[in-house]
Amino acid sequence: MRMRNKPWAESYLIEHSDIVDLDGSHAQEVSNWFEKSQPIHIEVGSGMGKFITTLASQNPNINYVAIERDKNVMIRVLDKVNALKLTNIKLLCNDAIKLTDYFKNDEVDRIYLNFSDPWPKKRHAKRRLTYPTFLEIYEQILKNDGELHFKTDNRGLFAYSLESMSQYGMYFTKINLNLHQEDEGDNIPTEYEHKFAEKGSRIYRMEAKFHNKNQ
Amino acid sequence: MRMRNKPWAESYLIEHSDIVDLDGSHAQEVSNWFEKSQPIHIEVGSGMGKFITTLASQNPNINYVAIERDKNVMIRVLDKVNALKLTNIKLLCNDAIKLTDYFKNDEVDRIYLNFSDPWPKKRHAKRRLTYPTFLEIYEQILKNDGELHFKTDNRGLFAYSLESMSQYGMYFTKINLNLHQEDEGDNIPTEYEHKFAEKGSRIYRMEAKFHNKNQ
Repeated sequence: MRMRNKPWAESYLIEHSDIVDLDGSHAQEVSNWFEKSQPIHIEVGSGMGKFITTLASQNPNINYVAIERDKNVMIRVLDKVNALKLTNIKLLCNDAIKLTDYFKNDEVDRIYLNFSDPWPKKRHAKRRLTYPTFLEIYEQILKNDGELHFKTDNRGLFAYSLESMSQYGMYFTKINLNLHQEDEGDNIPTEYEHKFAEKGSRIYRMEAKFHNKNQ
Repeated sequence: MRMRNKPWAESYLIEHSDIVDLDGSHAQEVSNWFEKSQPIHIEVGSGMGKFITTLASQNPNINYVAIERDKNVMIRVLDKVNALKLTNIKLLCNDAIKLTDYFKNDEVDRIYLNFSDPWPKKRHAKRRLTYPTFLEIYEQILKNDGELHFKTDNRGLFAYSLESMSQYGMYFTKINLNLHQEDEGDNIPTEYEHKFAEKGSRIYRMEAKFHNKNQ
């Protein structure tokens, strides 16, 4: 999600350093940063934040962390956190590849990936958030029996992810191949999802775990 | 695939006992039954046989085995084998659950499942050809690095199979979530597939292997 550059974005984020980490100052200390000690769920590439702020307001007994590298997007998440007066969410301005800088091994209960960039060209496969390099990071920071929840409207990315994740040693506990035509359960649409589902695009969704984490 | 009962089906099949096994007389002897010793590919639930007889005529260096329990359907496969004068295909009239009666461990190179009965009710899940009971059978008879190729137009069965197979310890080497809109490669449509794809139904396809078989 690219937004127009806002020169004031960085100073606005710095003003809210109780919620936003811009410089890695909470590396290995994310759990201690929260008021309460409770399970941690993170969203990698949180975009404008409707998904994770909705979850945070619905689930006060879970601590949420949004990771988003684009400051011009992160200010939209911060707006929502402030408007809802949420105390169980923190925002990390950084790349997904830096997750192990912030989180200790086995610290995270659940990871959400929503409408990640599909990087459709084969030579860009390494940038996909379900490429083995990233799966290794998720495996490291997730607890035993921790879950990865992923949804996308991109058929190619979903097929690639099923291959990549199963080859890595993950398994699927729930698959939806047309989410909005099936039992949606407690699905929370992102801004992007809402727009695309209205146009009739299919949304694909999975819940996955690591085999090795359960051995 | 259910066909009208044809009282003459059994006697027609018995007449061609050089091609058809009706009574399990080739149990543990399928490889020896063929003229040439070459890789074995089987189709479980071969229906009217367009798929496997096309493959058999295109690939004389592979031995094919069609398993189909319905004699009224199997006669349609036999018709095609005779019309094409194929010598690299044998037909087994039996249930998939009996596969280990016929094949030795690690004897089969590839298994095809095409448009298997979806058994959509949860209480019938055990009958789906990708239920763990069947995966165990496939794992036993497949060679190391042997492949399972599966296609269906049934979204629910495909999603279930991704879950079931990954949980069992299989991984996917190729996934198509809309086969006829993608690179079909050398896809051979079944009779059923042709009809449904023309109506605009999506065809799902996967190629899968067993993790444990490669260790």
